[in-house]
Amino acid sequence: MRVLVCPSGFKGSINSHTAADCIEEGILRAIPTAAVRKVPLADGGEGFARALVDATGGQIRRVHVTGPTGYLISSYYGILGDEPKTAVVEIAAAAGLSLVPPSCRNPCITTSFGVGQLIAAALEEDVRRIIVGCGDSGTSDGGAGMLQALGARLIDINGNELPQAGGGEPLVSLADIDLSGIDSRLKKVRIEVVCNWQNILCGLYGVAHVYGPQKGANPQETEILATALDVYASVAERMIGQSVSNAPGSGASGGLGTGLLLIGAELRPRYEAIMQYFNIDSLFDDCDLIITAEGAIDYQTPRGKIPAEVAMRARKYGKPVIVLAGSIGDNADANYDVGINAYVSILQRPSTLHEAIEGAERLLMESAEGAMRMVMVGRTLNGSFVNKTK
Amino acid sequence: MRVLVCPSGFKGSINSHTAADCIEEGILRAIPTAAVRKVPLADGGEGFARALVDATGGQIRRVHVTGPTGYLISSYYGILGDEPKTAVVEIAAAAGLSLVPPSCRNPCITTSFGVGQLIAAALEEDVRRIIVGCGDSGTSDGGAGMLQALGARLIDINGNELPQAGGGEPLVSLADIDLSGIDSRLKKVRIEVVCNWQNILCGLYGVAHVYGPQKGANPQETEILATALDVYASVAERMIGQSVSNAPGSGASGGLGTGLLLIGAELRPRYEAIMQYFNIDSLFDDCDLIITAEGAIDYQTPRGKIPAEVAMRARKYGKPVIVLAGSIGDNADANYDVGINAYVSILQRPSTLHEAIEGAERLLMESAEGAMRMVMVGRTLNGSFVNKTK
Repeated sequence: MRVLVCPSGFKGSINSHTAADCIEEGILRAIPTAAVRKVPLADGGEGFARALVDATGGQIRRVHVTGPTGYLISSYYGILGDEPKTAVVEIAAAAGLSLVPPSCRNPCITTSFGVGQLIAAALEEDVRRIIVGCGDSGTSDGGAGMLQALGARLIDINGNELPQAGGGEPLVSLADIDLSGIDSRLKKVRIEVVCNWQNILCGLYGVAHVYGPQKGANPQETEILATALDVYASVAERMIGQSVSNAPGSGASGGLGTGLLLIGAELRPRYEAIMQYFNIDSLFDDCDLIITAEGAIDYQTPRGKIPAEVAMRARKYGKPVIVLAGSIGDNADANYDVGINAYVSILQRPSTLHEAIEGAERLLMESAEGAMRMVMVGRTLNGSFVNKTK
Repeated sequence: MRVLVCPSGFKGSINSHTAADCIEEGILRAIPTAAVRKVPLADGGEGFARALVDATGGQIRRVHVTGPTGYLISSYYGILGDEPKTAVVEIAAAAGLSLVPPSCRNPCITTSFGVGQLIAAALEEDVRRIIVGCGDSGTSDGGAGMLQALGARLIDINGNELPQAGGGEPLVSLADIDLSGIDSRLKKVRIEVVCNWQNILCGLYGVAHVYGPQKGANPQETEILATALDVYASVAERMIGQSVSNAPGSGASGGLGTGLLLIGAELRPRYEAIMQYFNIDSLFDDCDLIITAEGAIDYQTPRGKIPAEVAMRARKYGKPVIVLAGSIGDNADANYDVGINAYVSILQRPSTLHEAIEGAERLLMESAEGAMRMVMVGRTLNGSFVNKTK
């Protein structure tokens, strides 16, 4: 039996690689002869670079960059194993929320400067393409820091340059962005941005109001950020000649989507892009069964979470999909409609979230074993069932 | 597909009938055309009479008896639907721990008098056999109350009669048991007792020490009870001419096993008896798959819990067994060795025991649906797998 194992990570618990390893072990416990193909998935956020590097047989490069709070941090980007030569930059690796200590969380001042440094480092390798994964950011500077790191100058209404890596708040007085000094190698590179199409820059559903509080902004700071990003949007719109305030993906990673638009990047809806990068469709054909996993499965899963995206594609190939979920939320049976054949929670007894997170590796492994044992019952059954009733 | 659904109840949550109904609903959600045969099981304790009545198409009879604390309670016994005419008496229905309010729990004084009344009521119906189910008792009087209700006189060392329904403590001064006045109809009836073979009357592993504290005895009361039951054992041994202190089942239901021996009953190990009464073996042949359930499954399950007992028998027929468990405990994979093909917890998210109990019906139903969906994946798989790899 050939099983394609393509889990998401469990946020705050185990990453998608560990998840895939656990599931593999569970499968092999139930069916020692199974042929397991592991393709850990990631949605653009934390773990994206490593997942894509692993899927293509590439390499991770370690570099030091300015972190979201202004201190030097150890970060990384990836070089994929396939052609054309492609770098993968994960925004969370240089501007991620998990890099901002809870006491320092303030999206008015955190910066995406390190993201620009990662892109610059990738340019040093003479890549032809840079894939940028958005998600899990701890910044809301519209990508201003990133632009500065790549050589742009942000000019205020008095003609002075805004501080380097100053965060989102200084954009309140932005008047112009001077791209004349930007890294010239960017012109020769195709930049593809994996982002949530729902994330827009401005307004009530924009960066400041939707994500500001999560990233540590109080109500007053949220309003300041909203105003700053409105100003930023008007400057950006004038420069690229199109509306960005409500453009799909313009608000990705605290508005970094917009900053990337300013340097000629193409924004892509994340799952369409991810499934292409991971070459999922080609893998469906070579498997009998697909097992995916996610921290939670509920009525929202069909609206753009990994298990549903996998299932919608697997359905075209007539391949069954089983989901192992950290928890099953309300009305999860909506997932049966998008091609998920069965799902099960990894939990085994009454427990706290903390206990579930602590035990996630074992629980996931045993849950995979249990699911495969159920599947094996069905295989056995088939014979006896057909013999006796047909 | 023909599915035999034979769950235990979930102690403190749902009984085995409700469990069977929930599982059936889940199965039919996954496979609307499935033929479901429900046989709720019970281990001799709470729910045993109803389970056996339902399995045989019999009837429940309601009667009033003296409860374990001496008050009149509404109780019941069953008349089975098959021949020879048989009554089923569930000790928990007249002397159950759940009939003793927590503040009144003291096995020195609680009585099995009502059990004798249930037997007497059954005798009124001219039955040929009485099946007595032990388990979940709140008494430790060695069946003294039961014997009194049937006409026996308990005589102390001074030649005086012990108080009626006086509980276990008065047995400290027991000298003799006068059975001359006992209900003469008992002679014509076969009494079979379904009991845990591990339960013995005396010693460190006897009634007082193992169950006394659970039933509300403090350390001093436990010692008194132990002494009283030692005295009782020596009187009983003299009367029936065989050792009872350590006899298998002699300690069942607070020593009621011994009282029943005194009136000529046959003690039977519970699962051998239960599987015969429920005619389980005949049902295995007519099903493709067996689903059972239990409140918990763990390393102890193979040592005499319902799922393992079902599985050990199903294995002889080559039929697969799936267990739906309230919780999965330590080293539950020991169950794979006794013929359980797969098990899964009904839990769906981090939760308290209370939440799990509150939601048990829905959880069990959805868990059955999920399990059957996994099985269906296996059935689908079989076709594609065989075609592609063989």
